[in-house]
Amino acid sequence: MQQIMEQNSHHAPEAGYVLGVDIGGTNLRAAMANMSGTVVARWSASTVGLRGHEAVVDLIGDGVEGLLQATGRSRESLRAFAAGVPGVTDVENGVVIATSYLMGWKNIPFRALLEKKLGLPIAIDNDVNMAALGEYCVGAAKDVHDFVFVAIGTGIGAGILLNGRPFRGQLWGAGEIGYMILPETALVPSDSYEPGSLEQLIGGEGIRSRWNAYREAQASELPADLSATEIFDFANAGNLSALEFVKHVALVLAQAIYNVFLVLNCPLFVLGGGVGQHPLLCAETNAVLTKWKLRTQPKIVNSSIGAEAQLLGSVYAALDVAKQNAVSPPHLQFVE
Amino acid sequence: MQQIMEQNSHHAPEAGYVLGVDIGGTNLRAAMANMSGTVVARWSASTVGLRGHEAVVDLIGDGVEGLLQATGRSRESLRAFAAGVPGVTDVENGVVIATSYLMGWKNIPFRALLEKKLGLPIAIDNDVNMAALGEYCVGAAKDVHDFVFVAIGTGIGAGILLNGRPFRGQLWGAGEIGYMILPETALVPSDSYEPGSLEQLIGGEGIRSRWNAYREAQASELPADLSATEIFDFANAGNLSALEFVKHVALVLAQAIYNVFLVLNCPLFVLGGGVGQHPLLCAETNAVLTKWKLRTQPKIVNSSIGAEAQLLGSVYAALDVAKQNAVSPPHLQFVE
Repeated sequence: MQQIMEQNSHHAPEAGYVLGVDIGGTNLRAAMANMSGTVVARWSASTVGLRGHEAVVDLIGDGVEGLLQATGRSRESLRAFAAGVPGVTDVENGVVIATSYLMGWKNIPFRALLEKKLGLPIAIDNDVNMAALGEYCVGAAKDVHDFVFVAIGTGIGAGILLNGRPFRGQLWGAGEIGYMILPETALVPSDSYEPGSLEQLIGGEGIRSRWNAYREAQASELPADLSATEIFDFANAGNLSALEFVKHVALVLAQAIYNVFLVLNCPLFVLGGGVGQHPLLCAETNAVLTKWKLRTQPKIVNSSIGAEAQLLGSVYAALDVAKQNAVSPPHLQFVE
Repeated sequence: MQQIMEQNSHHAPEAGYVLGVDIGGTNLRAAMANMSGTVVARWSASTVGLRGHEAVVDLIGDGVEGLLQATGRSRESLRAFAAGVPGVTDVENGVVIATSYLMGWKNIPFRALLEKKLGLPIAIDNDVNMAALGEYCVGAAKDVHDFVFVAIGTGIGAGILLNGRPFRGQLWGAGEIGYMILPETALVPSDSYEPGSLEQLIGGEGIRSRWNAYREAQASELPADLSATEIFDFANAGNLSALEFVKHVALVLAQAIYNVFLVLNCPLFVLGGGVGQHPLLCAETNAVLTKWKLRTQPKIVNSSIGAEAQLLGSVYAALDVAKQNAVSPPHLQFVE
């Protein structure tokens, strides 16, 4: 496992520190921040091949240890911890109900396991909700109290903020739009533990496999097995077959966003995730919506903090936990 | 205009009365209720051919007069008034932003016009939101704090309750699912003042015109120009071509409900409206969802108060206004 450490030493230590973690399919990233939310140190390690929750808890323990060593701070300086999990998460009881097909967790009392490991007040949440919180605190939706963060990576999910609070739904599954049924998706949703309809079409893996079929049909001179980002870059550089492909991805994304807009009537959508944050996708999706001449058109913008969104959201969630455990009133309402 | 009056005289007069009104495409219905919400008198008149807001305000004035005469109560006994409007309504400013294609209102300060006419504290809201409130107060979603009311009549709309409060969206257009894009709808949404994609498919008019094409293709022995309810009744009576048609309507409705469920994660959907309240549609839609073997399946139930939903919702909204204007704390939170 690779560990990267950095230390931002020009910030003086304050009343303590918080830790935020993002558990991804390829990396687990951790950040240590002071009580103003400024990140003072980072740590990351590969999660490739690592699926069991015990191993993830142990890896988080290593990360905390690594951050304390790198910064020379004591365990006693830590005030709270928060983690974003790639799955449906019962925030109230601290239970991960189900993770994506890669990890396969079911009803894991993850918060309790972390509390036992770390001895800190802890919050856990779905990673897309964490990313939405990051965009709200320091990103493209700063101070916008009602918006939808759409994450497109391997999978697709939405983090919804209503009245400045994460909206998670009665069964903690709000925003699971990767399964949405649209004109070109399967007519019937797939099993909920499998990739869903929309993400089969424009999720990272869906794009990759559809590109191969598309380039053959178009006799495109571009290579097979391109990633979504590579295709977007070829389109940006002027390749017409790549551009036509991107326009189709944007059409499907516009349909999905439009359907969410019909339900929630949120005027702002922030695009993020490895696939979703490409500027060309944002521009082409806005172009589709503009062409539709809607009575009210939602605005689509790019994430301004990219892959940092989940991690910074976790930091802010941890700050909120720390403040709830302190005397001062909480800065963020982070309850359902 | 036809006026129907009835009086329920076994309820003693209390501290006063409230008035609720539902403005429909064919009828305007009014109800007078005591402060416990018990309806003591009703009034209705045709709205066929009546589109302008001035005429509707005048008709409401006639209704109030009619109800006072029928009950022998004085104007001074009236505490508040509420009306459900078939359109996007800014509840805060009392402005009807846009009504359906039939009426064509745009930015009408309807609450102010009614206040001037009636001299009462007044609330206005979208009629589907009013119906959702009715289902919440006395209907199929009684005391269920998170649910979606789906109205299928000529048009299709959803009234959303979250945490026991109507959720209307930033631009007052939440739940406008009649425009939803699905596998068999148009790929591109129609102009927002025109019937939308989903309602073209399974709204009352959409069903009527699709039935004609379907019965020809199937060489069905059933007549042309059947209404949705007539088709549902033929299916209920055992006609196989009608049943197959209903199963298709249920499939499309299940897809729409599933997409809303993905966003909101509300476990309960209540079906209402002239087309939507047919028990066979509810049963067939539940059957589709069950067949999909979802990890969590939303429950679909029929409205238990049918066409009363909008009217009773308006009565409860008026009661809330009356209570906000009285010393006692409001029973219902009816603000955004």
